[in-house]
Amino acid sequence: MYIPSFDDARVAHERIKPWIHRTPVLTSETLDRMSGARLLFKCENLQKAGAFKVRGATNAVFSLTDEEAARGVATHSSGNHALSLSRAAGCRGIPGTVIMPETASRAKMRAVEGYGGEIITCKPSLEARERTLNDLVERTGANFVHPYNDHRVIAGQATCSLELNEDAGPLDAVVAPIGGGGMISGTSLTLSSIAPDTRIYAAEPKNADDAYRSFKAGHIIEDDAPDTVADGLKVSLRDLSWHFVSSYVTDILLTTEEEIIDAMRLVWERMKIVIEPSSAVAVAAILKNPDVFRGQRVGVILTGGNVDMYKLPWLAK
Amino acid sequence: MYIPSFDDARVAHERIKPWIHRTPVLTSETLDRMSGARLLFKCENLQKAGAFKVRGATNAVFSLTDEEAARGVATHSSGNHALSLSRAAGCRGIPGTVIMPETASRAKMRAVEGYGGEIITCKPSLEARERTLNDLVERTGANFVHPYNDHRVIAGQATCSLELNEDAGPLDAVVAPIGGGGMISGTSLTLSSIAPDTRIYAAEPKNADDAYRSFKAGHIIEDDAPDTVADGLKVSLRDLSWHFVSSYVTDILLTTEEEIIDAMRLVWERMKIVIEPSSAVAVAAILKNPDVFRGQRVGVILTGGNVDMYKLPWLAK
Repeated sequence: MYIPSFDDARVAHERIKPWIHRTPVLTSETLDRMSGARLLFKCENLQKAGAFKVRGATNAVFSLTDEEAARGVATHSSGNHALSLSRAAGCRGIPGTVIMPETASRAKMRAVEGYGGEIITCKPSLEARERTLNDLVERTGANFVHPYNDHRVIAGQATCSLELNEDAGPLDAVVAPIGGGGMISGTSLTLSSIAPDTRIYAAEPKNADDAYRSFKAGHIIEDDAPDTVADGLKVSLRDLSWHFVSSYVTDILLTTEEEIIDAMRLVWERMKIVIEPSSAVAVAAILKNPDVFRGQRVGVILTGGNVDMYKLPWLAK
Repeated sequence: MYIPSFDDARVAHERIKPWIHRTPVLTSETLDRMSGARLLFKCENLQKAGAFKVRGATNAVFSLTDEEAARGVATHSSGNHALSLSRAAGCRGIPGTVIMPETASRAKMRAVEGYGGEIITCKPSLEARERTLNDLVERTGANFVHPYNDHRVIAGQATCSLELNEDAGPLDAVVAPIGGGGMISGTSLTLSSIAPDTRIYAAEPKNADDAYRSFKAGHIIEDDAPDTVADGLKVSLRDLSWHFVSSYVTDILLTTEEEIIDAMRLVWERMKIVIEPSSAVAVAAILKNPDVFRGQRVGVILTGGNVDMYKLPWLAK
């Protein structure tokens, strides 16, 4: 297991700069008032392809040699990593293939195709997914880019808090959602090097609390069929992300489904920006724990904004 | 009738700067591709109180003498001007009173009160509104700030395209929605002085096309009970806004309800920002008229982002 260094993050930043947005840091008087803290929102919902995942995927794709790249890249994902890898492959002009369960939404598939990605569907099981991916890699020699348990991906995600730190100034704490742990790992990588006094909090849905339970137990516990509106956060930690979570995270804060949905609607209403439920988990965690953040300067990573406008969770309640 | 000058706009800008956001200018590869133009979106949906109206209201409030201000300000509005004047009065620490029809939404009333405004309700008729306002002004000496037919308000709105011009660089055209004509008047005031070659287009719902019909007829025609999802655009031109519209506007472009709703959803989905239907009218007009804008640099004024998240128009279709 290669653990990426802060140098890797700096190299990644130079490498991906031409292909990504330097997203803005926004503030909100209303949310400051409600939280009692000074919140600095890093808006990865305004990122290319609508999510921070484009950072890691782009770093992986552009770190390949020409020879490797010619054989293409592949992944399994039905979410933002699928879009991001497709886009990154398109930017480099190489094939990008995504293994998706046949149950994935048409909208997600269209979005992947819109970025030029090729889709191979398989039965919605771990076993079918692995087999389909292995077949593809064997046949084409494509480079597998895991959604988060990949040092190139984590070095890419690490560029987000590099920008946040530069643009927002010194922070007492940073809060980001946690699923597989890619963003939290990148955040840990960067902040432990350049801002070691900044506390790192992960925010997780109570209904998918495997990272929380892992953190408390001291070893990885996988989730058993989690069910949360924050569908980007259903996956479990892996060895590389566990390294960062167990070494650098101050605490993991849990939120209910209702708190997530309320926080999502609040951000749409008051900040006038579209965030997906996974991003709202971080906002909900801050509003729920005023004592942890009161009077502090807190970075909040709004991880993405890809939402089906016909399926808004507060209208389904 | 006093016609405000560009000097008035410059003075207004200095006056209101401490109280408003300098809103960002955003771009979108997707919308550029769809329109064939380079679109520069001036994001007044991210403005204080969620709309450009705070510019004019704040200019009016802060241009009062201390003696005038002490008697407070008043207006009639059930929309963004109501919020904006309430906020501006709050900033100056003076009473702000809004006459609202008793049929106005509870949400709007709560928002006005949230900004410290006082509400007087009346029957939903023009006659009741005027009488209630006159009674109030007579009783308190409050200064009446009309939502758009007021030179202080128009000088305030003029600061929006002043910033757009500085931040976006030279533009071939600017498109803004038109209702009463306050934003188009301010845009005309500024651009006719500092960028006289920039064409000015107003965008209007077909279902509330009084400005269009006025423009073609050469005199003000008032709407008869317009019904459009763009509820900020139901009001008619008045003498001061007619002066600017008839003097400086290149054309008025009409859009259907369906086009407005599609454009609104498109901006939410792809740009990840919340805009209200009135703003979407400008976007719809550009997408509908590619021949008018192809290959050009076009400023688009996204006028506001105050939306009831429980009443999204694409879900009501």
